[in-house]
Amino acid sequence: MILTVTLNAALDLTHRVDRLRLHASNRVRQVSARAGGKGVNVARVLHALGHESVVTGLAGGPTGEALRRDLAASGLPDQLVPIGGETRRTVAVYDEERADTTILLEPGPVVTAAEWAAFLQRFEQLLPPARAVVLSGSLPAGLPEDAYAQLIRRARAHGVPALLDADGRALLAGLEEAPAVVKPNAHELAAASGTDDPRAGAEALRAAGAQSVVASLGPDGLIACTLQGSWHARPPQAVTGNPTGAGDAAVAALALGLVARTPWPERLTQAVALSAAAVAAPLAGDFDPVLHRRLRHQVSVQPLAPLEGETRCP
Amino acid sequence: MILTVTLNAALDLTHRVDRLRLHASNRVRQVSARAGGKGVNVARVLHALGHESVVTGLAGGPTGEALRRDLAASGLPDQLVPIGGETRRTVAVYDEERADTTILLEPGPVVTAAEWAAFLQRFEQLLPPARAVVLSGSLPAGLPEDAYAQLIRRARAHGVPALLDADGRALLAGLEEAPAVVKPNAHELAAASGTDDPRAGAEALRAAGAQSVVASLGPDGLIACTLQGSWHARPPQAVTGNPTGAGDAAVAALALGLVARTPWPERLTQAVALSAAAVAAPLAGDFDPVLHRRLRHQVSVQPLAPLEGETRCP
Repeated sequence: MILTVTLNAALDLTHRVDRLRLHASNRVRQVSARAGGKGVNVARVLHALGHESVVTGLAGGPTGEALRRDLAASGLPDQLVPIGGETRRTVAVYDEERADTTILLEPGPVVTAAEWAAFLQRFEQLLPPARAVVLSGSLPAGLPEDAYAQLIRRARAHGVPALLDADGRALLAGLEEAPAVVKPNAHELAAASGTDDPRAGAEALRAAGAQSVVASLGPDGLIACTLQGSWHARPPQAVTGNPTGAGDAAVAALALGLVARTPWPERLTQAVALSAAAVAAPLAGDFDPVLHRRLRHQVSVQPLAPLEGETRCP
Repeated sequence: MILTVTLNAALDLTHRVDRLRLHASNRVRQVSARAGGKGVNVARVLHALGHESVVTGLAGGPTGEALRRDLAASGLPDQLVPIGGETRRTVAVYDEERADTTILLEPGPVVTAAEWAAFLQRFEQLLPPARAVVLSGSLPAGLPEDAYAQLIRRARAHGVPALLDADGRALLAGLEEAPAVVKPNAHELAAASGTDDPRAGAEALRAAGAQSVVASLGPDGLIACTLQGSWHARPPQAVTGNPTGAGDAAVAALALGLVARTPWPERLTQAVALSAAAVAAPLAGDFDPVLHRRLRHQVSVQPLAPLEGETRCP
């Protein structure tokens, strides 16, 4: 079982409109409302691939209840811890004429110290059967900045490796507990490392504690910097669609690779194929299974020459 | 007690953003989620004015539950009938830099014949204590086109006058049962009557069955065409703000006037003052009480000369 943690889960609304007009009333042609947040998306991808996962995190208010009902309807085991605040919504407005998406992100609840303590207790209970833990997304207000570091430390005490997909200070604080993998995107990597060069940035995060760094570069694929070597994995073609959730699909593949200890080039192939197949699916957490099967044989994985002075990335 | 009927109730979300950018992720600074739909807004205004009202209509799914919780929190008695479909949401995105609003309207549920029958039964139970019934807004899919006509007929059998605020075919079908008042806006009036002249349009709706017609003309106030005469009531000044809910505030005042049998010029004064005070409040269903008190003494009500050949509007 892979345990996914979504501390700032969301109810993701998708509104399809003919054309989004500002300063006007827009009739929504089609609505979808489903459980979201990065960790929930990861669990959804794992479930679709036939792997067992459990969703934990925090949820509250009527929006939290709607989220939990959707988890149940989706067959995703729900171990969310109740909070007094209201779970946030995201609204993705898909403009059919322009074929693009405008997103609204609600700020999310404020979590109390008692709620965080209750979460830590639940997390401890969920660790023994877990083979890996995925920690994804932003921290809601009220949580300590080192929340992810606390979780990684507890997971390690149970021998469970952690994969961290976070941003900013939550990411930096998490590095101190040496997560097995961190998966920033190019923007997050640049912000956390202070350099726009992804390779140098990934090395900087390894120096700060991460065992392996996999950076997602959008249509340019992934670069990975690990103890076993460094690689750049690229999809055979650009895929158009909805990039939201593509990173979560990559994380799902990386978590499976972590559990199965597959060689890095194979992990990266799976991660790139699944990520591109997720872009082709309209909703975050979904992927196009036909495209996924086809792309698995077409990903190019190139080893990167060691950087000068690089000792841990041979 | 005034009974308000909202067959297509909604959970109204308001998202405040610094500036709404298309094809981008927008952070929402502040969220409000509350029970909405025109009849709910009318009940909210009546409640704020210290008058008893009861909310009925249809509600379902997690969004319907969120709506009902907000009614309870707002002190509005809830007699909504449960349905299997999911209550719709509306999203109003308020752009603080531009000071304007972009609205998304979800389509709403499909109602079954059994659910409509259950609603009619509840409606019959609620009529005896009602002194007036307000029928507001669109009909969800699945309801008969003459749904409002059916309700007006039942209300009349209990001696309860009906005020109808609807559009298109729902309005036209309702006219056949001679509602006491209909309140279209200028656009709805033109569509229903086939003329852009509000006075002629109002006469046409009276000829089709309405006892009195009050048309809301935005910043130009109201015109009323009744058995007692015709008037044009205007606010002393244009009020800037959010016009959503201004018509519902006017309907609340007209319902109170209907119950108290106040002379039409006084009813129209109250309706214009309350409507302008609603524009000044950011959320539909609210009004600015200070502005309301001030404007009540400043509305101009001019009698209109009878039209040539007009017999019922002396």
